[in-house]
Amino acid sequence: MGPSFVAGRSLFYGRVSLALNFPRNYTKISVQGINPNMRKLEYAVRGPIVQRAIQIEKDLLKGEKKPFNSIIKCNIGDCQVAGQTPISFIRQVIAVACDTHLMDSSAIPSDAKERAMRFLRSVGGSVGAYSQSTGVEVVREDIAAYIEQRDGIPASPENIFLATGASEAVKFILGLVATTKGGSQRAGVMIPIPQYPLYSATLSEFNNYQIGYYLEEESGWSLREEELEKRLTEAKAHCEPRVLVVINPGNPTGQVLTRDNIAAVLRFAHRNNLLVLADEVYQHNIYAPDRDFHSFKSVLHDLGGNIATEVQLASMMSASKGFMGECGFRGGYCELVNFDPEVRAQLYKCLSARLCPPVLGQWCLIIALLMPLKLAMDVVVNPPRPGEPSYEQFCAEKSQVLSDLAKKAKLVESLFNQLPGYHCQPVMGAMYAFPRLELPPKAMRAAELANMPADTFYVTKLLEDTGVCVVPGSGFSQKPGTFHFRTTILPKVDQMHVMMERLGHFHLDFLKTYS
Amino acid sequence: MGPSFVAGRSLFYGRVSLALNFPRNYTKISVQGINPNMRKLEYAVRGPIVQRAIQIEKDLLKGEKKPFNSIIKCNIGDCQVAGQTPISFIRQVIAVACDTHLMDSSAIPSDAKERAMRFLRSVGGSVGAYSQSTGVEVVREDIAAYIEQRDGIPASPENIFLATGASEAVKFILGLVATTKGGSQRAGVMIPIPQYPLYSATLSEFNNYQIGYYLEEESGWSLREEELEKRLTEAKAHCEPRVLVVINPGNPTGQVLTRDNIAAVLRFAHRNNLLVLADEVYQHNIYAPDRDFHSFKSVLHDLGGNIATEVQLASMMSASKGFMGECGFRGGYCELVNFDPEVRAQLYKCLSARLCPPVLGQWCLIIALLMPLKLAMDVVVNPPRPGEPSYEQFCAEKSQVLSDLAKKAKLVESLFNQLPGYHCQPVMGAMYAFPRLELPPKAMRAAELANMPADTFYVTKLLEDTGVCVVPGSGFSQKPGTFHFRTTILPKVDQMHVMMERLGHFHLDFLKTYS
Repeated sequence: MGPSFVAGRSLFYGRVSLALNFPRNYTKISVQGINPNMRKLEYAVRGPIVQRAIQIEKDLLKGEKKPFNSIIKCNIGDCQVAGQTPISFIRQVIAVACDTHLMDSSAIPSDAKERAMRFLRSVGGSVGAYSQSTGVEVVREDIAAYIEQRDGIPASPENIFLATGASEAVKFILGLVATTKGGSQRAGVMIPIPQYPLYSATLSEFNNYQIGYYLEEESGWSLREEELEKRLTEAKAHCEPRVLVVINPGNPTGQVLTRDNIAAVLRFAHRNNLLVLADEVYQHNIYAPDRDFHSFKSVLHDLGGNIATEVQLASMMSASKGFMGECGFRGGYCELVNFDPEVRAQLYKCLSARLCPPVLGQWCLIIALLMPLKLAMDVVVNPPRPGEPSYEQFCAEKSQVLSDLAKKAKLVESLFNQLPGYHCQPVMGAMYAFPRLELPPKAMRAAELANMPADTFYVTKLLEDTGVCVVPGSGFSQKPGTFHFRTTILPKVDQMHVMMERLGHFHLDFLKTYS
Repeated sequence: MGPSFVAGRSLFYGRVSLALNFPRNYTKISVQGINPNMRKLEYAVRGPIVQRAIQIEKDLLKGEKKPFNSIIKCNIGDCQVAGQTPISFIRQVIAVACDTHLMDSSAIPSDAKERAMRFLRSVGGSVGAYSQSTGVEVVREDIAAYIEQRDGIPASPENIFLATGASEAVKFILGLVATTKGGSQRAGVMIPIPQYPLYSATLSEFNNYQIGYYLEEESGWSLREEELEKRLTEAKAHCEPRVLVVINPGNPTGQVLTRDNIAAVLRFAHRNNLLVLADEVYQHNIYAPDRDFHSFKSVLHDLGGNIATEVQLASMMSASKGFMGECGFRGGYCELVNFDPEVRAQLYKCLSARLCPPVLGQWCLIIALLMPLKLAMDVVVNPPRPGEPSYEQFCAEKSQVLSDLAKKAKLVESLFNQLPGYHCQPVMGAMYAFPRLELPPKAMRAAELANMPADTFYVTKLLEDTGVCVVPGSGFSQKPGTFHFRTTILPKVDQMHVMMERLGHFHLDFLKTYS
């Protein structure tokens, strides 16, 4: 504010007002002054270790000397950066939908052009238009068809909404149940420990009360009903429990739940009046030969009776995982089961204020989705059909991606378990291993001196010495006194071998140093 | 829960526990049980009138007879659905970035291929990868370059973050300043009345206190400092004022602020310790020959002294508006000025939990942005340069879009003002007209009987009788006792004539009926 203006105002208001109206100094908002829910939010997958890795990568580019020549990023499920090749058909459909002049080009196969035409008709002719807030109608219809094929039970487009990645859908559901009240009236949300940190971050954001339940590592990260009961009982004094989050296949833990286990969880939710948020984004990533993916919706249906018609379920799916791995498109969906229609209407009203999710992300999600694993080909709508020009290439690319992942899942498990002090449960599904580390007492003391959790200490040294970037277990939460890290299984097979070799040497040196 | 299990548990816990543990009936979450902030959220641009229009459109498709053969949607700034043609160059770059096999095709011009190559290098080779949470680095660099050209003062990529449309950026800023406290400690946010309902909706979501300040309709929706002072003083008993939102060019009101007016607003913000949120998404949509776009950042800079280095400013821009109109890509950015670096770090941490905005949306935003209006061509980075193959077509398409809009801005203003009872201020910028209606007393009584605000009554009848869909003023808020509606100026020129003709006939009939 200019001095002349001060004078003007003080003259106008007279002496008494002068004191009252005299401008305070302008004070910027400080960290102490921001929304406390945002201050306490943490998200380890992109935390300090990852920031450091980005810095080292820049240093390497600048020609700085390091004991390694590249960063191997195993911190995030970012499939294509790790070398996974996009499915050509998805990209061809999107390219011609974006630039419709390519309809005349022989570079795009005819079946891709057909799919693009169908989509363009449904969005008023341009991918640059807003869609409905819940998503493009034909995309929701296709998703309903996909779910019907997967589960063998009806699905309605009215119960499906699209989102900017499954993450946004999770935020809307956890926001919807927040109570805005304090103390014991806060909404309680049960989440697995270890968990994907989106959950703890979102609970912070909405000031929900976190009820952690431990997965049992020794039995392959299984989900025990007794544990759920125990943690819920403990939490009742502190909150109003409203939601149970289950991640299946597990992130960061890689387990795949059995049908019986899911049934027990749903009965528990019914008994305790909980809405179930089923994070099923890895439903195509199953590697264990003795496990299948069972959706919460299908198990709920088969339970029958009141449970089947009462338990509220929100199931999430994403274009970022599976064989698609199209993270950058930000396509995700959520199916609502047994929601009060008025509550659904309120939720959809809230979606409308953010207009719509990215249109290409919506489309990306469904171009290839309608050919899930192990399903008959003749009923699919969108992926190439037998006889169509893109069919063979599509199948070849898809099975290449999934068989490579299965190979690497086996590889990391077995190599980790050969290292002294490593304990790695089977990687049945998803894209991660979460080995437990037994570290020598001297290492524990060194970590303490460095003022770090022992796993952070370990993975920091791993990064600095070898360029391998993984996320410490403390970022996902874990049983007190145990130490883990999460690594993706995404780098290409040969890179994965390099990574395991660097890690193996590092570990043996580490043990030598600290024994 | 199965009966056998009940029995098992009751035996185990004994008689006393039986009563305590006996399952309640499962109760679904009701509307009364959801997050009250989400319950009170309203967003008129996609409200009931629009839902009704979608229904009528479906009825028409089914062959139902109506007094009109099409819905003309003037409810939302959805450029391409209204007929605006996408800029070919943007789409070509995106197509070849999605399907890199097109690098070998003659269907894509060489300059588009070059831009795609540069982008692909910056995202690890695939648009399917996650970007940094704040956005792709080269995109942020390009945006900084754009801002430097626009304002002639430095901009840093560190102060820029990308978002899923400008809407998401607005939500992050208004979330950041929320206090989570009740009563007079709630964060107060000043917003114009009329306003774009994203603001009131987001304030509901974060339980911020809304401080509405009226724009002065008679003087072309100008922003008066006395009004700001008055409303702020009134509000101080009810909240802790933290933010001043200004929309320039105005939505729904279409005014363009003068440099002096912006300076006065910034001095007011400085005096009162307010962060300024400048919604500048229509910065390319200026039609009044005597007005230029002045960014808040450049005016702030020119004020000099403490003001220039102290006032916190967040400025929003979008790929959805301007000559691009790429709404479906959901690309937006926010530039932070004078933020405490620690606060900025907290904000960026929160961005990381949603991983990243859609990668193509980020790219879309910048492909054409570096050729803003009235700027020299030789300094631009991304749009085609003179001599490049796409240059002429790019310029022709861009000026076609902007000159059509200018023509329609003039057209609606003059036609509205020919109708008895209509008062329409000049449409200086943005994409909307917001005429005021004087309705006869008989119409006011009929609206009252129908239990609707008079403008809702009017636009509902307009939709049912003519198929023209506009949004009632009550959805944007307005001075008590005044009635308006917002119409876009987006339909093609000939459609715009049809729309104005239908509306004119309707209005004269309406006056006859209610006089």
